[in-house]
Amino acid sequence: MAGLVVIPDPTASDDRVEALVDALHGFGFDVHRTGGAAVVLGAMGVDADFDVRHIKVLPGVRDVVRITSPYKFAARTWHPDDTVVDVDGLAVGGAELVVMAGPCSVEGVDQIEASAAAVAATGAQILRGGAFKPRSSPYSFQGMGEEGLRILREAGDAHGLKVVTEVMTERQIDVVGRYAHVFQIGARNMQNFALLKEVGQAGLPVLLKRGMSATIEEWLMSAEYVLAEGNPDVILCERGIRTFETATRNTLDLSAVPVVKQLSHLPIIVDPSHGVGIRDKIGPMALAGVACGADGLMIETHPNPPEALSDGPQSLYLDAFDALMGRVRAVGAAVGRDVPEPRPAPVAEAA
Amino acid sequence: MAGLVVIPDPTASDDRVEALVDALHGFGFDVHRTGGAAVVLGAMGVDADFDVRHIKVLPGVRDVVRITSPYKFAARTWHPDDTVVDVDGLAVGGAELVVMAGPCSVEGVDQIEASAAAVAATGAQILRGGAFKPRSSPYSFQGMGEEGLRILREAGDAHGLKVVTEVMTERQIDVVGRYAHVFQIGARNMQNFALLKEVGQAGLPVLLKRGMSATIEEWLMSAEYVLAEGNPDVILCERGIRTFETATRNTLDLSAVPVVKQLSHLPIIVDPSHGVGIRDKIGPMALAGVACGADGLMIETHPNPPEALSDGPQSLYLDAFDALMGRVRAVGAAVGRDVPEPRPAPVAEAA
Amino acid sequence: MAGLVVIPDPTASDDRVEALVDALHGFGFDVHRTGGAAVVLGAMGVDADFDVRHIKVLPGVRDVVRITSPYKFAARTWHPDDTVVDVDGLAVGGAELVVMAGPCSVEGVDQIEASAAAVAATGAQILRGGAFKPRSSPYSFQGMGEEGLRILREAGDAHGLKVVTEVMTERQIDVVGRYAHVFQIGARNMQNFALLKEVGQAGLPVLLKRGMSATIEEWLMSAEYVLAEGNPDVILCERGIRTFETATRNTLDLSAVPVVKQLSHLPIIVDPSHGVGIRDKIGPMALAGVACGADGLMIETHPNPPEALSDGPQSLYLDAFDALMGRVRAVGAAVGRDVPEPRPAPVAEAA
Amino acid sequence: MAGLVVIPDPTASDDRVEALVDALHGFGFDVHRTGGAAVVLGAMGVDADFDVRHIKVLPGVRDVVRITSPYKFAARTWHPDDTVVDVDGLAVGGAELVVMAGPCSVEGVDQIEASAAAVAATGAQILRGGAFKPRSSPYSFQGMGEEGLRILREAGDAHGLKVVTEVMTERQIDVVGRYAHVFQIGARNMQNFALLKEVGQAGLPVLLKRGMSATIEEWLMSAEYVLAEGNPDVILCERGIRTFETATRNTLDLSAVPVVKQLSHLPIIVDPSHGVGIRDKIGPMALAGVACGADGLMIETHPNPPEALSDGPQSLYLDAFDALMGRVRAVGAAVGRDVPEPRPAPVAEAA
Repeated sequence: MAGLVVIPDPTASDDRVEALVDALHGFGFDVHRTGGAAVVLGAMGVDADFDVRHIKVLPGVRDVVRITSPYKFAARTWHPDDTVVDVDGLAVGGAELVVMAGPCSVEGVDQIEASAAAVAATGAQILRGGAFKPRSSPYSFQGMGEEGLRILREAGDAHGLKVVTEVMTERQIDVVGRYAHVFQIGARNMQNFALLKEVGQAGLPVLLKRGMSATIEEWLMSAEYVLAEGNPDVILCERGIRTFETATRNTLDLSAVPVVKQLSHLPIIVDPSHGVGIRDKIGPMALAGVACGADGLMIETHPNPPEALSDGPQSLYLDAFDALMGRVRAVGAAVGRDVPEPRPAPVAEAA
Repeated sequence: MAGLVVIPDPTASDDRVEALVDALHGFGFDVHRTGGAAVVLGAMGVDADFDVRHIKVLPGVRDVVRITSPYKFAARTWHPDDTVVDVDGLAVGGAELVVMAGPCSVEGVDQIEASAAAVAATGAQILRGGAFKPRSSPYSFQGMGEEGLRILREAGDAHGLKVVTEVMTERQIDVVGRYAHVFQIGARNMQNFALLKEVGQAGLPVLLKRGMSATIEEWLMSAEYVLAEGNPDVILCERGIRTFETATRNTLDLSAVPVVKQLSHLPIIVDPSHGVGIRDKIGPMALAGVACGADGLMIETHPNPPEALSDGPQSLYLDAFDALMGRVRAVGAAVGRDVPEPRPAPVAEAA
Repeated sequence: MAGLVVIPDPTASDDRVEALVDALHGFGFDVHRTGGAAVVLGAMGVDADFDVRHIKVLPGVRDVVRITSPYKFAARTWHPDDTVVDVDGLAVGGAELVVMAGPCSVEGVDQIEASAAAVAATGAQILRGGAFKPRSSPYSFQGMGEEGLRILREAGDAHGLKVVTEVMTERQIDVVGRYAHVFQIGARNMQNFALLKEVGQAGLPVLLKRGMSATIEEWLMSAEYVLAEGNPDVILCERGIRTFETATRNTLDLSAVPVVKQLSHLPIIVDPSHGVGIRDKIGPMALAGVACGADGLMIETHPNPPEALSDGPQSLYLDAFDALMGRVRAVGAAVGRDVPEPRPAPVAEAA
Repeated sequence: MAGLVVIPDPTASDDRVEALVDALHGFGFDVHRTGGAAVVLGAMGVDADFDVRHIKVLPGVRDVVRITSPYKFAARTWHPDDTVVDVDGLAVGGAELVVMAGPCSVEGVDQIEASAAAVAATGAQILRGGAFKPRSSPYSFQGMGEEGLRILREAGDAHGLKVVTEVMTERQIDVVGRYAHVFQIGARNMQNFALLKEVGQAGLPVLLKRGMSATIEEWLMSAEYVLAEGNPDVILCERGIRTFETATRNTLDLSAVPVVKQLSHLPIIVDPSHGVGIRDKIGPMALAGVACGADGLMIETHPNPPEALSDGPQSLYLDAFDALMGRVRAVGAAVGRDVPEPRPAPVAEAA
C-alpha cells in the first residue's frame, strides 16, 4: 500500500485543492487533509509502487512525498533484528567479522591452491574467484567457466574455506550453484532484474554488490527482488560509487555502512579493492570499513599480481594480505568485533 | 595491440628508469624512450586490453597513458564515414531525422492502436513500446510479454511504422527477434555483456542506451561488444546520466552528441523523456537534442498518461506530441535536417 | 515562515506521535495532524530557514519535508511574470536573445578592439572580458586589473556594446563598478556570501554563474542574497556542472533552463564555452541552449586563440563566431526568438 | 616549467607530426620524439601552468598529457618528509592524533564555556566555533562577529585549548587573526583565490577544507596558493564531496586520506560532521577516518543541539562526544596513533 503526502502550492485556491482531492480519489486513495494555514493532504491506498509523479504533474501541486518505503522485506522497520546469513555453517552478520579473499579470476590449479592456502592461513573464512568474468572489453579474458568453478571449490574444500563466485546471467545459475556457497551478483548486474529473480529461487545466499551509480534505496530495492522470491539470505557489499574524483577508481562510500545498518537488517560488507582500484590504498580503506561497522571485507589477493589475468594491480600480494589481516584484527578488537586467529598451515604442507 | 606512454617520476634515477624499461619488456612491450630532460617511455605491443595499472603500480612511475583506443570497430579513426543503419529500409543516421515514439509499456490493443495512429500521423517513423519491463520494484507491472510484442508489431505494420522494443535477457532474444525491427538494450543492461554478445549475433539492429553512470568510452566499449560479433548496426541513445542534481530525474548530457560524433561513426539519438523524467521539460530538451546534431529522438507518448501502467508522468499526451513535432521540424530545418511531413490519416480511418 | 510536513514512522505509537507534536510546539510551530490510517503532521511557524534536521533526528520520525520555499524574491510563485533586466537600455529576458561575447581575459588594446569590432558586427550586444581572473594555479596570469577594465569599456563604448566583467572580491566592487554595465559573479564565488551581499547593494545588474556543484535550489538561494539587498536585476548563467564524465570539461546541464523558467522569473543564459571546454563542441551546444529556451548566450571568442593568455582552446576564432551567429539566428527564429541582424562595420573602419 | 607528452593520432601522416613539432616549438617547447611504431612527442619548457588544451585542439593530436605536477610546494616529490604544523606549540601531523571540537557557531559565553570545558576534558586539543558564518540562506543567523571571536578565545585560553575559526573574506583577516590560532577556510571558499593569497601572508596556520566538488588535485592547487605566499603551515580537511547519493548530506571521501598522503607532505584531518550531516552516522565515520590514517578529526559538538543556531542536528551531545573519544582512542591505538588521555576537570572548577 502506498502512502503519500501531497503539498499544494501556497497560492493554490480552495477549488484547486478540492480538484487535487478528487484526482487522488480517482487514483483510488483515501485522502485526509490537515486544517490550519498549511494545507497538506495525506493519501493512503492503491499499490506500494504507485508512481508519485502522477500527482506531481497535476496543477497546483508543489511537491509529493512517498511516506511508505518502497521495499518491505529489506526494511528494518518490519524486521528490527539483524539478519545473520548462514553460509553453510558460517555466520555472516554476527559478532565475528567475515573476510572473503582470493583472486579476481580463477586462472588455474596452482594459482588457486596457493591462494586458498594463504587465505586460510590468515584466518579469513571465504575464498573468492571468478570463473565467469564481466569485462568492459570484449577482447579481455572472459574466465575459465565450469573448469574454474571446479578448481575453486576443490581448493576451498581442501582448506576449509567457503566459496563465493559471480553469476552473470540466468543461464549460469545451475552450473555456478553446483560449486558455490554464495552467489555473487556484480555491480553491473545490480539491476538485472531477471537474474535477481532467478537467484532468489536458487536456494543459496546472495552477495549483492552495489551498482556504481545506485542509491542506497535502489540497492535495497534490488535486495527486495531476491527476498521477495523467498530467499532471506542477502549480504550487501559496498564497492565504491562513481563520482567526479579520478584519483581512485571509484569513491568508496563508507557512510553506506551506518546508513544501511539503520534502514535494513541485512549484513553489509566492504570491498576496498574495487573501491579504490590500486594496491597501496586498499589496506587503509579495509581498516576504515571495519572501523565504521561493516560485517566483513572482500579483498582481492593474488600469488603473483603482475601475472594476473585481471585486476592484478588492485590485488594484494599474499604476504601483504597476511600483514593486513593483523591490522584488521587490531581494529576489529577496538570496535568489538572478533576476527578469527591465523591458522597454522596443516602438518602435511609443512612436511 | 596496446600502446602506452610511461612517465617516470621526475626524481627517478637512471637505474630506476632502466628497471621500468626491463619491466615493460617483461610484459612483452617494445620500448622507445625520448631523450632530453623529460624522459618518457613509449611502449607498444601485447594485447589491446592490457591493464595499464600493472605499470602504474611500479616504483618510479608518475603516470601511464594508454595511447591506443580500447575500441576498434566503434572508432571513427578506422571508419571515417558515418554509419547509416538500415532498419528494414529506413535509414537511421542519414540526412533525415528519425523519431521513435510510443508508450513506455504495451498495455493492450486499444492503447497501442491509438498510439500508432497518432505517432504515424505526425510523421514519426518508429513505434516504441515495452513488453518486457525492467522495474526497480519487484511489485511493479513487469510487462505483457509475447502478447505485447504481437500487439506492437501488428499496430506498427498497420500504420507503416517500424518497431523497437527492449530485450532484457538472452532468453528473450528469440521471441523479441520475431517481432522487433530493432532490439533495444536498456540503460541498466549497458554492461550486461552476455546479452550484448548474443544480440550481436541475432541479425537485427541494436539501439544501445547509455548506462546511467557510463562514460562515453565505456558506452563505446559496449557497442564494441555488439560490433565485434559481426553486427555493424548499432544506434546509440543518450538518455541522461546520474548527477547530484535532483530537479530532474537524470541530467541529459547533450554534449555527448558532438563528442560521440567525433569519436565514432555510429548514429546517436536522444531520449529526453528519461533524461528529464517529467512531462513539461521534454519538449525543450527534444528541440535541444535536434539543435546539437542528434540523428533522432525517442519520446514517450501515451493516449492517456494518468492511466499508464508505467512512466505516465513523463509521457506526452498525443496532441502535445503532435505539436512538438511541428517545432522539431522547424528546428531540424534550421540545422539542415529533414523531418518527414505529417501524414494525413488513411481514408479508411476517416470513414 | 517555515512549513513542514512530519511523517512519523509507521510503527510509531500514539504516545510517540504525541511526543513529536510536543517537540514541534517546543520549537514554536503550530501543528495540525491528518486523521486516518496515515498520520502526518503539518507544522507552520518560526523562521523560513528552520533547519529541518532538528526534527529528522527525533525518535519516531520517518521523514520531514519542507513545504515552503527557502527563497522568496527569486520564486515565480510570488512573481509570476518574467523579469526583464534592463542593462543600460538593453533588455535581457525579453523577446530578443542577448549574446555576450569576447575573450576570457583582457590582454591589451588591440586584442579588445579587434574583439569588440567583430562581436558588434555579428549583432551580439554585450562585450565580455576579465580584468581580475580567478585561476586555479597561483602561477597563471591573474589579469590586467583596472587598466583592463578601462580598455574593455572604451572598446564597448566605441562599438555600441554593453560590458560585463567579473568581480572576485568585495574590494574590487568600486573599481569594477566604474566600468561595467553588469557585474559577473563566477562559478567559484556563487556561495561567496559576503560578495553577494555587497553586489546586491552596488546598483548594477548581476550575472550569477551557477557553481560547479550547486543544485538549482542553491543557485536560486544565492540569487536571493542579491535580491534581498534590494537589487532585482539578476541574470542566471548555466555553465556546466561537475560529473563523472571527463570527455568534456563540465557537463552542460541544459535542463536547468526549463527548470529555472518554472521555478523562477529571472532570465537565464547559457555559457557553452565553459560548459564543454573545447572549441569544436561549443557551436552545437550554443544552438541547443537557444533551442531549449535560454534568454541568451555567453561565448568566449578571441582574435588569435593560440596566443590567448587564458582559455584560448575554448575560445572561438572570430570568423567561426560570426558563422555560429548565423546558425543561432536560424534556430532562434525556429523557436520564436529574435536575434539582432549583423551590423555592417562603420564607414571609418572600411576606409 | 611544463612537461607534456603529445600523442599523435595513429593515422597522422609524417607531415602532420612534423607540423605538430613545429607548433610545439612555436609555443617555446623543446621537443623529443620516440622512434618506433608508436610515435610520441615529449615537450619540455615554457611555464608550469601552460594550458594543454592549446595542443589538444591541433589537427592530428589524439591526446596530450601533462607530466609535470601543476603544484610544487604541496608535492611530496620535492618534500618527501611529512610536514608537522606547529599550532602555537601543538603539533598537527605528528604521532599524536589532533581532535578539534566545538559548536558550529559561537552563540554566547555560556554555550562556549560549557563546550570548552567538555572538549578539554575529553583530551581534545583544539576548540572550534564560527563567528562569521557562510549560510546558504540570507535569512539565517550570520554569526556574532568579533564578540564571538573574543568569547571563543577566552574559553580556549581558560581550558588550555587552541582555537580554530573561519575567515570568510579578506576584510576579516585582521580581526580573526587577533583571536585565532588557525584560520579555517571553508569548503565554499576553497577557490576564493584572493582570500587564499592573503591568508598566505597573515602568519598563522591555515586549515583548508576541500570544496564540495573539488578534485584532490584542485585542492592541492589551492594549498599551493597559500604555500606560494611563504606560509608552509597548511592542514587539509576532508569534509565530504557532492555525489548523487542523498542518504547523507555529502559523501565522505575517506580514500582522499591515503591519496593525499601519497601526493603531498601536508597533514590531513577528517570532518565527519559535515561529511554525513546527521548525528548518528558521525561516530562510525570518525573512527573510519582514524583507521585510514588521518592526522586528526574535526567534530561538531553542542551542549544543547536542539537549541543550536546552526547545524544542531549534526552536532554531538557533549556526553556522546566524550564516549566517542574513548572509541577514537581505541582505534587510534590499533593503528599506532596516540590520542591524549582525558583530563580531569581542574580543581578550581570542582570547587
